[in-house]
Amino acid sequence: MHSAAAMNPPRILDGKALATTVLATCRAEAAALHAQGITPGLAVVLVGEDPASQVYVASKARTCAELGFYSRKIELPATTTQQELLDVVCTLNADPAIHGILVQSPPPKHIDEAAIIRAIDPRKDVDGFHPENVAKLVLEDPSGFVPCTPAGCIKLLDSAGLATAGAEAVIIGRSMIVGKPLALLLVSKHSNATVTIAHSRSRDLPAICRRADILIAAVGRPEIVKASWIKPGAVVIDVGINRLADATKKSGYRLTGDVAYDEVAPLCAAITPVPGGVGPMTIAMLMQNTLQAARQSEFKKIQKPNFFLDHA
Amino acid sequence: MHSAAAMNPPRILDGKALATTVLATCRAEAAALHAQGITPGLAVVLVGEDPASQVYVASKARTCAELGFYSRKIELPATTTQQELLDVVCTLNADPAIHGILVQSPPPKHIDEAAIIRAIDPRKDVDGFHPENVAKLVLEDPSGFVPCTPAGCIKLLDSAGLATAGAEAVIIGRSMIVGKPLALLLVSKHSNATVTIAHSRSRDLPAICRRADILIAAVGRPEIVKASWIKPGAVVIDVGINRLADATKKSGYRLTGDVAYDEVAPLCAAITPVPGGVGPMTIAMLMQNTLQAARQSEFKKIQKPNFFLDHA
Repeated sequence: MHSAAAMNPPRILDGKALATTVLATCRAEAAALHAQGITPGLAVVLVGEDPASQVYVASKARTCAELGFYSRKIELPATTTQQELLDVVCTLNADPAIHGILVQSPPPKHIDEAAIIRAIDPRKDVDGFHPENVAKLVLEDPSGFVPCTPAGCIKLLDSAGLATAGAEAVIIGRSMIVGKPLALLLVSKHSNATVTIAHSRSRDLPAICRRADILIAAVGRPEIVKASWIKPGAVVIDVGINRLADATKKSGYRLTGDVAYDEVAPLCAAITPVPGGVGPMTIAMLMQNTLQAARQSEFKKIQKPNFFLDHA
Repeated sequence: MHSAAAMNPPRILDGKALATTVLATCRAEAAALHAQGITPGLAVVLVGEDPASQVYVASKARTCAELGFYSRKIELPATTTQQELLDVVCTLNADPAIHGILVQSPPPKHIDEAAIIRAIDPRKDVDGFHPENVAKLVLEDPSGFVPCTPAGCIKLLDSAGLATAGAEAVIIGRSMIVGKPLALLLVSKHSNATVTIAHSRSRDLPAICRRADILIAAVGRPEIVKASWIKPGAVVIDVGINRLADATKKSGYRLTGDVAYDEVAPLCAAITPVPGGVGPMTIAMLMQNTLQAARQSEFKKIQKPNFFLDHA
């Protein structure tokens, strides 16, 4: 058994720095598309006035501006009906200036979110939540859009050169947004990990987590993962972003992940901080997906005239 | 450590008996549909002359006949083109007598099987391989069709009253047909298992399998799972059907699963035999899916006239 004190300090997986690199590449690729007369365009639809959602939406618009993407923010009142929202999505589907469409989650309770997601043209579904893209993930079809947070986790592992093949990966959480897609990515031929999906109904979660060479916490419960849950030398990816009351902060709270960072980090080979880990990667992957959507639309534009010429 | 000799004999999960029960229910439900003027109809398309495929197709047609289903066998030469096969699928999609369409796998090498599957109307995709149904499985939407072999495994566990919630399930194999869908089913809110997906690239497969309360072997390698891979008291589901040379048999071979049954069975609380375990369940689930397709088409028929009346 290793003791914490005997170990080297962990490698910090700096998501902010990696996101900056990814975004620089996006900016360069957007410039190349510009030269072909294409500006990648992202539409973000916000229904209601949730303050957290407003912050996320503003941050996406700002990032678009920095990269030279076109962005359109569509703010709708909380009273918007399902049909009105469907009409907005429909208009964006038909708009050639828009390559990516994102409806900020969560919408008000009277909205059937699944039906809204289904209405988005899958070629513009840069969140990767449309059934068409969900299926492509299962079928390992690279033409689909991978959900941004799981894609960000994989990018963090790959960029750090952390080997996943044959490794034991344990994911805590089985959501459609993170847990399940991440399990599918890690078990795919790209990553080749042995993957365990654990959740609230799992027996002896600490023992399951102690098997992990790569532990991914995506439960949304502050600092649930303790030092005793960690195999020394593990890689820990913390997807959680939780507010924890903290009287020493002006805001009255601090942001914390699902991992008790201070006690866990000394045991790890590598770990993501919160904030500054998975969070910044999510938005970087969104921009990468929007670029992919713009590129694929461009491909279509090139193909179509040839098609018509062939049949002229 | 338990010794094999000290344990009770394992419970044999008799797939043949359970399939007979499931099929009896299907027959009764088909009779009820008959009374409403509906005959569940299954079309099976066979391209080429693979002898094993011919046996499977004949067996499906025979089961349909026993249940009072309408069945249509479409045998096409190995030289059939992609377009010709697409045309056949398209005709079946439009045929109101056909509720389920199945293209027997594997087709000849020049056929793009994924494109054929995509062409099937998802409401008639009783194999559950269409992207629409794959996504419904991930999203836990019960209106989709679940692939027959994984559905059969779940039915075997449920019918035997074997608890899956909180249990450690290990699946060996990550195919689109068995491993991945079964993982998604076992981790869903229906089953609530902790699920590990292991495969050819997993390190120390025996140790991973020894963690399993429920072990599912779906690798297609004869008798790879040995007694030393088993936690005493485990439930073992053997999806493999392999031919092993056997000079004592007239045919020169015997059928065997992925599990070394004779040495593994004494350690288990329950185990499926091969043949007579998962195999018969697969065809029973196909019939259940066809019935579901017929029922859902009937629902539409009832709804439509009302719709027109409302708007008359």
